Amino acid sequence: MAEESTKVEDDKKNENRLWGGRFSTSRIHQCLEKINNSIEIDHRLHKQDIKGSLAYASGLKDAGNLTDQERNLIVAGLKKIEEEWAEDEFQLYQSDEDIHTAVERRLKELIGPLAGKLHTGRSRNDQVATDTKLWLKDESEELTKLLSGVIMRMAKKAEEQIDVLMPGYTHLQKAQPVRWSHWLLSHAWALNEDRQRLAQIVERTMSRCPLGSGALAGTPLALDRSKVAQALGFTGVSENSMHAVADRDFVAEFTFWSALTSVHLSRMAEDLLLHCSLGFAKMGPGLSTGSSLMPHKSNPDGVELLRAKGATLTGLCTSMLALLKGLPSTYNKDLQLDKSILFQAHDDLKLSLELTYAVIDTLQVDRINCLAALEPSMLATDLAYYLVHKGIPFREAHNLVGTVVRLAEQKKIEIKDISIIELKEISPLFDEDVLQVWSYESSVEQYKAFGGTSKSSVEEQIVKIKTQNHTE
Amino acid sequence: MAEESTKVEDDKKNENRLWGGRFSTSRIHQCLEKINNSIEIDHRLHKQDIKGSLAYASGLKDAGNLTDQERNLIVAGLKKIEEEWAEDEFQLYQSDEDIHTAVERRLKELIGPLAGKLHTGRSRNDQVATDTKLWLKDESEELTKLLSGVIMRMAKKAEEQIDVLMPGYTHLQKAQPVRWSHWLLSHAWALNEDRQRLAQIVERTMSRCPLGSGALAGTPLALDRSKVAQALGFTGVSENSMHAVADRDFVAEFTFWSALTSVHLSRMAEDLLLHCSLGFAKMGPGLSTGSSLMPHKSNPDGVELLRAKGATLTGLCTSMLALLKGLPSTYNKDLQLDKSILFQAHDDLKLSLELTYAVIDTLQVDRINCLAALEPSMLATDLAYYLVHKGIPFREAHNLVGTVVRLAEQKKIEIKDISIIELKEISPLFDEDVLQVWSYESSVEQYKAFGGTSKSSVEEQIVKIKTQNHTE
Amino acid sequence: MAEESTKVEDDKKNENRLWGGRFSTSRIHQCLEKINNSIEIDHRLHKQDIKGSLAYASGLKDAGNLTDQERNLIVAGLKKIEEEWAEDEFQLYQSDEDIHTAVERRLKELIGPLAGKLHTGRSRNDQVATDTKLWLKDESEELTKLLSGVIMRMAKKAEEQIDVLMPGYTHLQKAQPVRWSHWLLSHAWALNEDRQRLAQIVERTMSRCPLGSGALAGTPLALDRSKVAQALGFTGVSENSMHAVADRDFVAEFTFWSALTSVHLSRMAEDLLLHCSLGFAKMGPGLSTGSSLMPHKSNPDGVELLRAKGATLTGLCTSMLALLKGLPSTYNKDLQLDKSILFQAHDDLKLSLELTYAVIDTLQVDRINCLAALEPSMLATDLAYYLVHKGIPFREAHNLVGTVVRLAEQKKIEIKDISIIELKEISPLFDEDVLQVWSYESSVEQYKAFGGTSKSSVEEQIVKIKTQNHTE
Amino acid sequence: MAEESTKVEDDKKNENRLWGGRFSTSRIHQCLEKINNSIEIDHRLHKQDIKGSLAYASGLKDAGNLTDQERNLIVAGLKKIEEEWAEDEFQLYQSDEDIHTAVERRLKELIGPLAGKLHTGRSRNDQVATDTKLWLKDESEELTKLLSGVIMRMAKKAEEQIDVLMPGYTHLQKAQPVRWSHWLLSHAWALNEDRQRLAQIVERTMSRCPLGSGALAGTPLALDRSKVAQALGFTGVSENSMHAVADRDFVAEFTFWSALTSVHLSRMAEDLLLHCSLGFAKMGPGLSTGSSLMPHKSNPDGVELLRAKGATLTGLCTSMLALLKGLPSTYNKDLQLDKSILFQAHDDLKLSLELTYAVIDTLQVDRINCLAALEPSMLATDLAYYLVHKGIPFREAHNLVGTVVRLAEQKKIEIKDISIIELKEISPLFDEDVLQVWSYESSVEQYKAFGGTSKSSVEEQIVKIKTQNHTE
Repeated sequence: MAEESTKVEDDKKNENRLWGGRFSTSRIHQCLEKINNSIEIDHRLHKQDIKGSLAYASGLKDAGNLTDQERNLIVAGLKKIEEEWAEDEFQLYQSDEDIHTAVERRLKELIGPLAGKLHTGRSRNDQVATDTKLWLKDESEELTKLLSGVIMRMAKKAEEQIDVLMPGYTHLQKAQPVRWSHWLLSHAWALNEDRQRLAQIVERTMSRCPLGSGALAGTPLALDRSKVAQALGFTGVSENSMHAVADRDFVAEFTFWSALTSVHLSRMAEDLLLHCSLGFAKMGPGLSTGSSLMPHKSNPDGVELLRAKGATLTGLCTSMLALLKGLPSTYNKDLQLDKSILFQAHDDLKLSLELTYAVIDTLQVDRINCLAALEPSMLATDLAYYLVHKGIPFREAHNLVGTVVRLAEQKKIEIKDISIIELKEISPLFDEDVLQVWSYESSVEQYKAFGGTSKSSVEEQIVKIKTQNHTE
Repeated sequence: MAEESTKVEDDKKNENRLWGGRFSTSRIHQCLEKINNSIEIDHRLHKQDIKGSLAYASGLKDAGNLTDQERNLIVAGLKKIEEEWAEDEFQLYQSDEDIHTAVERRLKELIGPLAGKLHTGRSRNDQVATDTKLWLKDESEELTKLLSGVIMRMAKKAEEQIDVLMPGYTHLQKAQPVRWSHWLLSHAWALNEDRQRLAQIVERTMSRCPLGSGALAGTPLALDRSKVAQALGFTGVSENSMHAVADRDFVAEFTFWSALTSVHLSRMAEDLLLHCSLGFAKMGPGLSTGSSLMPHKSNPDGVELLRAKGATLTGLCTSMLALLKGLPSTYNKDLQLDKSILFQAHDDLKLSLELTYAVIDTLQVDRINCLAALEPSMLATDLAYYLVHKGIPFREAHNLVGTVVRLAEQKKIEIKDISIIELKEISPLFDEDVLQVWSYESSVEQYKAFGGTSKSSVEEQIVKIKTQNHTE
Repeated sequence: MAEESTKVEDDKKNENRLWGGRFSTSRIHQCLEKINNSIEIDHRLHKQDIKGSLAYASGLKDAGNLTDQERNLIVAGLKKIEEEWAEDEFQLYQSDEDIHTAVERRLKELIGPLAGKLHTGRSRNDQVATDTKLWLKDESEELTKLLSGVIMRMAKKAEEQIDVLMPGYTHLQKAQPVRWSHWLLSHAWALNEDRQRLAQIVERTMSRCPLGSGALAGTPLALDRSKVAQALGFTGVSENSMHAVADRDFVAEFTFWSALTSVHLSRMAEDLLLHCSLGFAKMGPGLSTGSSLMPHKSNPDGVELLRAKGATLTGLCTSMLALLKGLPSTYNKDLQLDKSILFQAHDDLKLSLELTYAVIDTLQVDRINCLAALEPSMLATDLAYYLVHKGIPFREAHNLVGTVVRLAEQKKIEIKDISIIELKEISPLFDEDVLQVWSYESSVEQYKAFGGTSKSSVEEQIVKIKTQNHTE
Repeated sequence: MAEESTKVEDDKKNENRLWGGRFSTSRIHQCLEKINNSIEIDHRLHKQDIKGSLAYASGLKDAGNLTDQERNLIVAGLKKIEEEWAEDEFQLYQSDEDIHTAVERRLKELIGPLAGKLHTGRSRNDQVATDTKLWLKDESEELTKLLSGVIMRMAKKAEEQIDVLMPGYTHLQKAQPVRWSHWLLSHAWALNEDRQRLAQIVERTMSRCPLGSGALAGTPLALDRSKVAQALGFTGVSENSMHAVADRDFVAEFTFWSALTSVHLSRMAEDLLLHCSLGFAKMGPGLSTGSSLMPHKSNPDGVELLRAKGATLTGLCTSMLALLKGLPSTYNKDLQLDKSILFQAHDDLKLSLELTYAVIDTLQVDRINCLAALEPSMLATDLAYYLVHKGIPFREAHNLVGTVVRLAEQKKIEIKDISIIELKEISPLFDEDVLQVWSYESSVEQYKAFGGTSKSSVEEQIVKIKTQNHTE
């Protein structure tokens, strides 16, 4: 699932481990190697790992643990490694247990034993927590852009189609006429809140830099943790080293966030699938597939997969919480699985958002079918308001109109076709002016309060959501 | 699970439904009634439902839909109902489908048909969303207090026991000596972040008042939504009526939050269970139970249940996401189950926090057992730093000390008992001054950087966490 | 959620615990009591607990640990308690930690200290595992009957409506005409497999009686475990005492089973909701509810809740797996939460099945609307078969008919309205006999192979499923 | 995650789709392609896809839809393709939407348009369900062998170490002495039940061949479904075509099964981690890793990952249930994600079992440390039995021994060191013969009933579990 493919060479030497000294056997059991090595997953952190080491090298220098020259050599080595990654020339070996090992191993190849000073006072425990936070920040910026892009496209689509009326449903039953744009924006607002939520997660994540927590006890060096943290874009440092290496709340939060956002897309997807089934809308070119058996089929497969991802991302959120549940203090190897969960959640959501953009961008709304699906009974509430305006308490008006609906059903006619005489039998307050009720356009235009489905209110929404996604 | 018990009387009349008019059969099928009625669950919203109706009555008056006198009568009726609930005198009937029906039914009994005006332009769809948000806010205040209480008790305990040293573990293997207080605070900080997270959820939840969204299309009245929202303690109104009645993100967020907080407690519980097993600590009086078979057993059952709740709350989070996944737009009856999830999550977490307070409050730390569990090999890292200080790159020092550890293992002695001569064979830099390494207290005191396990750093943490929980 | 309500009296004495001896404080902390006591949940096991004790008393007698007279007194006491439960006269006290304590406490009240012999060599650990297995067996019989009842009603409904044709969908797009009965049976078969699965779970559960496992080490008595097991309806005994008290796989399996069965109901529910939305079917009397705002609404709430339960039961399955994950050997208090999960899963599923029966029983199929929804393009596959019969490989025929469909779309006509001349341009093999293709009834009747949608095949299905649910 | 890597070439032609005819645009949108194409996942079904097609070709011949010669050509083509896969020479293109397309595309390249006859009356909907069932069967055989291998290794280890006594725990507190082998077998029995469960899933899965269900309506050909099913190793055919293409219960069952089995491994892992922490056991060579910071560490990382997989597999089970929840009838594209769930569950579990074998195989039990961890208080239950043998009801004896325990605690001595005089004060029945109680070996040997921890009972278990895993 990783975006970048990795070719890992079997070096058979197994000499790169960072921890060999105390073991008499140098070979690691192949089953352990297979389940334990994370390089095929965590190589995606290479940029962040190098960035973290660059800042740490400066921190070591300031603390007096590296000379200026040593720092410069290390920095030069790290920059070279960065280039190798960028050029896709970095060579991975099977004994590169993880990205930290790979980078330190390569640094040693480049600058010799001096490389061994970089890890002074640092453990992979605080290193990986730092790397992962940095990755999450970088990728969240991308996701935010994608989200804003989708929202803006929805807003523009809402503008374009503002005159289309369609049935609004509750309980999957026709309820009241609404603007198609109002429906579309209902999903845009959900995504807009997702965007805001993500910003808070990133802010929280970046408020506590774990670097300097060591394996669990902290750092014995004169390290200026705040300065290092700042250099990496953090706004503060973690307050407790044992917590810092144990903490994967930011992964749990991101995974839940991805699941919730995906669930929002799944709800929009369900609507779109219904709309496509009912003829209210059609997928744009290239966004349907056919059937291997039935020549006439044009299936909105992509949108079905948007719905399905809501389920698999829910499962990832479950995985992450269950992973942490009952885990002892500080670092346990279980935490390593956080990255396959995190990356999968990220990749699934990113792809889902890209597809959503394409779907909305090209969606063909069928205004005629939408209009044709409206039914007079959907104006029953307006009929009740008609009576309310004549002074009847709403609950009573509701009851009287209920009787009108039942009568229409018995007569197998529409409620608007019940005669005034019959209406008057139900309530003497019914009169000729009842005819004005039977306009879908007027019905929709009543909802002028902010958040309602009238044209002005929808326009107001569009302005508001555009502003937020321009400036933020 | 509901906190307050409810006695629901079977009135056999089934006349209270808010929607009877259009149905020829007045009886609802008993299976539907059983699965559909939510009054046994949602009666817990009574305070919020009445509060919402009070504000709405004023909104209707301002909008010209109620006269002053009508508003006053309605308000008086609602206040009477509020009293009845407070006095536990409110009578529920089986035909009270939900709390909204119950309150409106009772209002009609008290003030007659005028009660039927209260629902003008309002649907249970926007009403229940509003009620639930208000409930979440009220209860979150309680939870925040509980959290702060637990955190403060942990901080004080950390102060009391600051001199106790114990083994810090990673991978459940002895790693480095740490202060017991540092360990305890590692869990306190996690809870402190939970407190901050909850504040954000509440803020977000209260930034969008759904009232005025009607069933899905908005309100046709001249309702000042912002004013009503403000009266209820909201800071803004929902931007789209279809989204507002469909939205249960605040429940999903709260459920995830509860699960994550409970997972934090489960990790502390796991530690405590290990500590009790190892003799590092003992439950206070009244906080253990015995065995029906084995007379000597004293089991920390409560703490085991803290761990277990991490699992059941994870399941509730799953339930909520799966509930929303693929659900069509606006209101669907599926959303009704949000409340049993929400209340269960709340009750489980609240009880867990109460128990946590009691456990921490009375926990008996055994400083002698803690100290006795420290081993010289836990100072291996310090031995490596010893070499680093003499100029060897950390990685090489790590390797050399690894050799020392292997030698000790072969000789079945402690690393501190290896002779200087043997050490010198491994590295000539070892000298008599190596003896200073073998002090647990000195080891711990090295970690003076913020977040570390030295006394000063732990004291700094205590001040910081206390300040945050005093003022916030 | 428990079916039977319990009134628990606060006796303030706290004297009933089975394990007080080694504790100097007799009072248990109220928070621990609140989270630890399970009597409000596990009182539902009273029948099984007494049954287990009756068998165990005989086992003790056979083993020489009770005299005949002692056994008889104990049996008489237990039968009295059974009656008290049956008559709803059993008094519960707050200090009755769990059902086992309550029964033993009452037994002591009835027959004196002799009651204290019943627990010889038995622990609540093996006792509760035995009780729960017995409960699961008893309730599974009820669920099996319910399932068979629903399936039989579906089979009869399928018989009644066998002539109704409707659109079959894939991807929520119209695919091929099918019999409504074929659709209904597709859900009946899923439930039939659930019935078979449940039988296997019960068989497996009852193949290993845990009684005689003690707390964890087994029983030191000369207990004939097999004889006791047989007396309780088990077919064998558990093979390892440490596993027996740790094992909750039967609860996990049952919970997964409930979730899967509920998911099947949720899929049928989704179909029914679509059918109700499209006018293919209507809920029977008493199975819809209305809207508090919109007088015309008739909402299939119950069916929505069937869908929703698929989510909450999925969450319970998650809870159970997460509960067991990483739990140490033998009995841990975490296992106590198995019963709230189990009972909730059972109750939710049982209620769902009862509602399903009512829904199917009274469902009103609208054959006219079903037929009206068929479209000629749904016969495109038949048009391809028409060409296949004339010798064209299917893939090529599929392609040619694809061209026909595209042409119809461009001309905005139905494919059956394309002229023979135009068809011949696409393939010269098209001829006048193509007209036979355009019959929905003939189309459906082609599918005569077993499992297909022809009348004979559907009838065959009905016979088969009825036979299985009669005899099994 | 797929075992075999795939190189997919971008052919830019996009000509291989099986359904192009009705679409005017031949290009599929790249986002849709990315989310929709499953070839990178489902290529793992190639063996089963070809096997299915071979059987189907014979079925078509028997039904009169292929001549003998046509069948032979198709068979020869398919066999060639099989070889290409075996030789790793099969070329995949980006336009090979899925494995079915890839195989049919290649067949056409090899034998021309005749390839287009193979799909007559078949849809990818019934094809993929068939393929997946065949895959599950094949892989389950492998998993069964792995399980039996692990169980047999555990049984042999139990034989080797049968004389080692260790503390048995409940609630993570020392409970009663047990044999180490008894503990190990407690996990072996859990896995043995997993093996039995898997056999039932496979049997159920293979009892219903979906082939002949078409897209949803069945097959219009004179296909002998039973014969084709039998040729593929099925024992029967699916009873309803709409159900057959919608059904993924076998994937859900397998995923739950994997999760439960993994949860069993996670419980054993938790025990092993505790044992390693307590010095009861040590990982074999090559099965530990070290720390990048702390030179002395030897961490059982692999076992931690066994524990962690219990969480990720739980999440996969959640994903699968949530995927199916609320899904409409028949085939929806959501179902495509079943394979990434299935394959991931399979791969994770397989790797976990392989690692478990290696861990058990080389585990070093430390009998001295195990013995040293036993404490006299663990014989308190035996002391109670001592009194029971002298005629005191167990509950009273339990209480009296509780008093003994409390006294020892107050005096800070072991219970075995309390003088006979003091014991007599607690109960006059205590006498010199109480000394026999204080033997761990005798204590353990009391548990001779089947399933207990005595030597003979453990040996009986070993024979039984070995027999089952030899013969089955």
